Amino acid sequence: MDKKPLILLTNDDGIFAKGIKSLVKVARKFGEVVVVAPNSPQSGQGHAVTIMDPIRIHKVDVFEGVESWECSGTPVDCVKLATNVILKNRKIDLCLSGINHGSNASINILYSGTMSAAMEASLEGIMSIGVSLLDYSFNADFSGSELVLEGLIGEVLKSKQDPCLLNVNIPNVPYEEIKGTKICRQADGNWEEEFQESRDPRNQPYYWLTGKFVNYDEGEDTDLWALDNNYVSIVPSHHDLTNYSVLDKLQHLSSEK
Amino acid sequence: MDKKPLILLTNDDGIFAKGIKSLVKVARKFGEVVVVAPNSPQSGQGHAVTIMDPIRIHKVDVFEGVESWECSGTPVDCVKLATNVILKNRKIDLCLSGINHGSNASINILYSGTMSAAMEASLEGIMSIGVSLLDYSFNADFSGSELVLEGLIGEVLKSKQDPCLLNVNIPNVPYEEIKGTKICRQADGNWEEEFQESRDPRNQPYYWLTGKFVNYDEGEDTDLWALDNNYVSIVPSHHDLTNYSVLDKLQHLSSEK
Repeated sequence: MDKKPLILLTNDDGIFAKGIKSLVKVARKFGEVVVVAPNSPQSGQGHAVTIMDPIRIHKVDVFEGVESWECSGTPVDCVKLATNVILKNRKIDLCLSGINHGSNASINILYSGTMSAAMEASLEGIMSIGVSLLDYSFNADFSGSELVLEGLIGEVLKSKQDPCLLNVNIPNVPYEEIKGTKICRQADGNWEEEFQESRDPRNQPYYWLTGKFVNYDEGEDTDLWALDNNYVSIVPSHHDLTNYSVLDKLQHLSSEK
Repeated sequence: MDKKPLILLTNDDGIFAKGIKSLVKVARKFGEVVVVAPNSPQSGQGHAVTIMDPIRIHKVDVFEGVESWECSGTPVDCVKLATNVILKNRKIDLCLSGINHGSNASINILYSGTMSAAMEASLEGIMSIGVSLLDYSFNADFSGSELVLEGLIGEVLKSKQDPCLLNVNIPNVPYEEIKGTKICRQADGNWEEEFQESRDPRNQPYYWLTGKFVNYDEGEDTDLWALDNNYVSIVPSHHDLTNYSVLDKLQHLSSEK
């Protein structure tokens, strides 16, 4: 009989967020689950790592019967500590990150601690899935997402494909209204930022980031199109940021002395 | 006569780092320079943004005759504040980030605040160059890097190509020993991490990230090959993380209900 898969869970909303509870609930149906997650919300941390400070980890009793650790660092730190310390001598079969409260589609993958944690695991050759529900609220309803995720994990573990990184986003509609799942490319969108300028109690100015997301991309092969049309979007992603399409065009910048 | 280009400078080592002094020195030969840089070292911050806290900016007198702002946020925050607040109504022609103390070649681009700042500017349609010297020391000698950069900025401003993002790394050898410049792809390498485990004065355990970089990629078209052979490496980079090579292979995960 096959050994039960070892599944690492993490997130960026912190170990007490509702979304990771759903991940635990679904993942334990498929294997042995270990949780290593931040001890506080870490949204927007991107691929940040803690190098100038020490990091703390503590074993905690948050999910009944599941080995769980809270970590003082970023989501990427959590994965580094999981692979190099907590599960140092064990092979991790799958990493799940999330379920994020809010979209990580399009350009949001860059800022997302959820997706950066999944990417960090993929760098270690671990099949990794970052999952997000398009609902930012603290008490988002993850019941539909759990069903989506259960189907996906089953497929991924069965197909024994090469490890890769999947950016999965789930539309914020009841499960019955989800039309299916699409493999997509990352849509070209961006944030039109504004900063709210205000004054603190000592009358000193400060700025607070806000803004609205704009989609520049009408492609029907994109994650944003899929989500707008009530499909789950899956964007296979990777860590190679080379822009191959301009390599040739830039040869005039190369030189030999 | 053409208007002088407006050049935004930033970094991740902080506004008082030696590397950004070199950037100012070179950039002011080409146009009007505005500096918006972190008020403290921000190495390893990746694409982190500050969303849960306010950000402060202060005009400072660090570089004679150059408008300069220190910012309490991450490198990406600096660029967002520069484009949306400080230079809100002006067109930025070029963003330079660095000169970083240490390599941002290969996978290091993911963790790098220097490169994330440059990428953030490129998202705004600004031609952006992140520059790093392969010397981590505080007092690194940037004199050769200044000559390299001067040549590169001249070429980039002259060629009027579409805005793009360049990851430039400079080998740590005297300028005379640099053999030239190569347009490269990002090498496949990674960090083999270890955590130094120790105890604080209250006998509580903590972990501190350390490790060594390993190159898995022998390609002579990579940044690591160029640098190992005393060439400046330029990797054109972008924000589209889609792994196009596996889109077809994953179609079995798509479905219609």
